[in-house]
Amino acid sequence: MSETAYAQTDRTTPTRNRERASAEREVIHSILDSNWICHLSFIADGAPVVLPTIYARVGGYLYVHGSTGSRPLRAAGADEGLAVCVTVTQVDGLVLAKSAFHHSVNFRSVVAHGIAHQVTDPEELAVALDALVDQSVAGRSADVRRANAKELAMTAVVRLVLDEVSAKSREGGVRDDEADLGLPHWAGVVPVATVHGTPEPDPSTTVPLPAYLRDLG
Amino acid sequence: MSETAYAQTDRTTPTRNRERASAEREVIHSILDSNWICHLSFIADGAPVVLPTIYARVGGYLYVHGSTGSRPLRAAGADEGLAVCVTVTQVDGLVLAKSAFHHSVNFRSVVAHGIAHQVTDPEELAVALDALVDQSVAGRSADVRRANAKELAMTAVVRLVLDEVSAKSREGGVRDDEADLGLPHWAGVVPVATVHGTPEPDPSTTVPLPAYLRDLG
Repeated sequence: MSETAYAQTDRTTPTRNRERASAEREVIHSILDSNWICHLSFIADGAPVVLPTIYARVGGYLYVHGSTGSRPLRAAGADEGLAVCVTVTQVDGLVLAKSAFHHSVNFRSVVAHGIAHQVTDPEELAVALDALVDQSVAGRSADVRRANAKELAMTAVVRLVLDEVSAKSREGGVRDDEADLGLPHWAGVVPVATVHGTPEPDPSTTVPLPAYLRDLG
Repeated sequence: MSETAYAQTDRTTPTRNRERASAEREVIHSILDSNWICHLSFIADGAPVVLPTIYARVGGYLYVHGSTGSRPLRAAGADEGLAVCVTVTQVDGLVLAKSAFHHSVNFRSVVAHGIAHQVTDPEELAVALDALVDQSVAGRSADVRRANAKELAMTAVVRLVLDEVSAKSREGGVRDDEADLGLPHWAGVVPVATVHGTPEPDPSTTVPLPAYLRDLG
């Protein structure tokens, strides 16, 4: 294990497409920091479940938002925690080859495994909630009414230590077989991106658009 | 169970935010048909795993793409199949309330539970592969060299019958507490969308941009 990389375990060591995998902290953190939706999976009644939710990275922790009423969060509140896998995926393009077989997707993803624990310390919970708000809109947490005690009690956040974590990605162009290059099909890459539209103020809003909303991309 | 809705089970019956849930076929199929990336979860060595991949809906089936080298697909090739949960999520907007507590996300998602089986019949596999190509770019499967026998043997697709499946969504504006409406914070919705950029042809491409690529949105 180098200081710039996460340690690899059996389940973070790729068995296929090794050139697409990375354990580098910089790569993993970059993907985590440019997204805010994750898919959280856990086992309920012996079967796998995966749900979308929001997350934030704070140093070596992932904070994942839930509800105090939801089953996984209740389990994570117990001392033993909850075994989870959290995956963050960003799609960058459709790769259209001349052969169906070489069609692919340009993407960046992070998969983190571990035991999640519910955040119960009020100070840590406050930090986590600010980070959850700022993950999607940097600077937003300074421009809201923060949660009061009653709201904090209704909010559940779990913490996952980033430890067993890896990144995968594919980038670049089409990789068709030599024998297919002359086929009369269109081949190339169609870029895919997630973009923000023009902010739509609520009727209650009396202030101009804040700077932190002007350049979301 | 109505003919227009999927039957509900314990795990597809919402315990919270019931107004955001739907078992209607039309709603579920509409979400599935306007996306092509899913998150596939399963249990490996007793722990949950969730990975991004592509899928296609064909009638009452979901076909999910994998690799013959990957562990979940090998398990799904066995007679007993593989317990999975497949989730498709589309983000439509950031809901920025005056209180941190009422921040939310506009989204549409589908969660499907069941036992996945590897597709082994060559005719079904051919249909599934065409559907996988067409799910992201309608019409594309007619403009490629289809997979040959060797490639088919290297491709794994699992079938999940849409049976235990439900949708969730949130739409609309901010729902702040009355007491917060006068606060001097910006509140409103920031639309979020996934868009396609200008197709970038591979140097081997000698044909003009096909009609099916001109209006991807």
